[in-house]
Amino acid sequence: MIRKLIDGIVKKDSPIVVGLDPTLALIPEHIKKNSFAEFGETFEAVGDAIWRYNRKLIDAVADLVPAVKPQIAMYEQFGIPGLEAYIKTTRYAEEKGLLVIGDAKRGDIGSTSAAYASAHLGMVKIGSSEAEAFGTDFLTVNPYLGTDGVKPFVDACNEFKKGIFVLVKTSNPSSGEFQDRLIDGRPLYEHVAEKVIEWGASSMDGDYSNVGAVVGATYPEVGERLRKLMPKAYILVPGYGAQGGKGSDLKVFFNSDGLGAIINSSRGIIAAYKQEKYASYGEAGFADAARAAVLDMKKDIKDSI
Amino acid sequence: MIRKLIDGIVKKDSPIVVGLDPTLALIPEHIKKNSFAEFGETFEAVGDAIWRYNRKLIDAVADLVPAVKPQIAMYEQFGIPGLEAYIKTTRYAEEKGLLVIGDAKRGDIGSTSAAYASAHLGMVKIGSSEAEAFGTDFLTVNPYLGTDGVKPFVDACNEFKKGIFVLVKTSNPSSGEFQDRLIDGRPLYEHVAEKVIEWGASSMDGDYSNVGAVVGATYPEVGERLRKLMPKAYILVPGYGAQGGKGSDLKVFFNSDGLGAIINSSRGIIAAYKQEKYASYGEAGFADAARAAVLDMKKDIKDSI
Repeated sequence: MIRKLIDGIVKKDSPIVVGLDPTLALIPEHIKKNSFAEFGETFEAVGDAIWRYNRKLIDAVADLVPAVKPQIAMYEQFGIPGLEAYIKTTRYAEEKGLLVIGDAKRGDIGSTSAAYASAHLGMVKIGSSEAEAFGTDFLTVNPYLGTDGVKPFVDACNEFKKGIFVLVKTSNPSSGEFQDRLIDGRPLYEHVAEKVIEWGASSMDGDYSNVGAVVGATYPEVGERLRKLMPKAYILVPGYGAQGGKGSDLKVFFNSDGLGAIINSSRGIIAAYKQEKYASYGEAGFADAARAAVLDMKKDIKDSI
Repeated sequence: MIRKLIDGIVKKDSPIVVGLDPTLALIPEHIKKNSFAEFGETFEAVGDAIWRYNRKLIDAVADLVPAVKPQIAMYEQFGIPGLEAYIKTTRYAEEKGLLVIGDAKRGDIGSTSAAYASAHLGMVKIGSSEAEAFGTDFLTVNPYLGTDGVKPFVDACNEFKKGIFVLVKTSNPSSGEFQDRLIDGRPLYEHVAEKVIEWGASSMDGDYSNVGAVVGATYPEVGERLRKLMPKAYILVPGYGAQGGKGSDLKVFFNSDGLGAIINSSRGIIAAYKQEKYASYGEAGFADAARAAVLDMKKDIKDSI
């Protein structure tokens, strides 16, 4: 699966993933008004509004980026209708030729991780049939429980030709609280990175592994170190834009082949219309504003790497 | 909320939570047959079968235990109908006077954890209305992202009078891979435990905090140490029974007040009918077998502590 992502990155000349993280505050008023008029102030209305919002965003960026990354929490908070919008969004993105990185950060003991892996990456057996629950192409995974909590996801990568990104160093301010602590003289995130290499060795797909890593753009010096430590792991880089990561921080996340990283931006793109820079698009032009923001981000990255 | 759990434990004289972790392999044939006959080999059929199974289990144990703990992965793998069964199960358990511990192990950056906290513990704003997505009483939380990833859950505990259990030392075989590593001479899980104390101080509810900890029954020596380190944190103890934890291992998880721990058993109870010991109940008597297994577990714990 990582090869498919690389193909998309190369073809579209764009190591960018658009984070589809809808909140009610970000969705334009005219969309909410329509949905509330039809469904009242209900989860159904929000699910409808999210879906309309995402569809336009996907239409606007599908030719520019290889993938989208819906953050499932933003859907889960709106209950069943929210999760239905998540599924509709992923299906529509796939129709439009985009890969989908489900940002769910799941991770549990072995048998439970196996259930999550089936849910998000695989097929689930029902009697003599099989069905797909969420069926995304990649999933983010939390490593705190160790190998037996991650292995079922790696197995799913091999069985269903999918990929995962394991949290190594996250983009948030307090990520260092545990992740930076020194163990035998090296930060915990490096120990996790070593496991990512080990897990990834069993799921190679061309030059890179289906087992990638999450490393925040907000810690470029850590990114530089981890880039060298895990040469065959693709790095999913959140934290660009709204969280404070800048284009000039990104160079270190790439290998000398120009590959090895995919940069996420969520609010910076899907709510670009709220920024002064893109205000001329107006709320009605939110999708065009998103497109413009992707093009600017592409240039920002190009100029930096 | 922790006081409410303690009240239930004292009233029912039972520090036991029943893990409602249904898989198709555990659900009795006659239930599956009915559901498949009605809905075919679909997620709807599985959701229906899970719901029928759980309802009978809840009826059989509701007067014996204070709480149930559905593992959401087991529902998520069956897509929307699976999650509908999760919600139905939690609502029914609450009707029967049980508290519900949602075992979801969520955790993300601050704004995303806030969405998860709203989803599972709180209310979600929709225009001028509010609605409840999953609405469980407690949630398990993953600490890997540090304070800003956990704080929104603590805030939800205070705002909505709920509780959380933070993963400190998990029950699985490879939990030590990262959790046991020494940082300044002390294992990572102790550093997490110190944060649990810090987070919990802002959400006290009587003698205990709404911020509890998960510590596996499979590591009693660690449990003993963590019990002393976090005197005001309730410990949710998985790993008893099917995972290998024994009654004699449990004493160390309790404080001298006889409180401080709640022991989970999942397969050992919900699929007791598959054990030789309870075989006489037959598959049709799965609920009575579960009841007998709870009574035996209660005795096993009583004899040990």
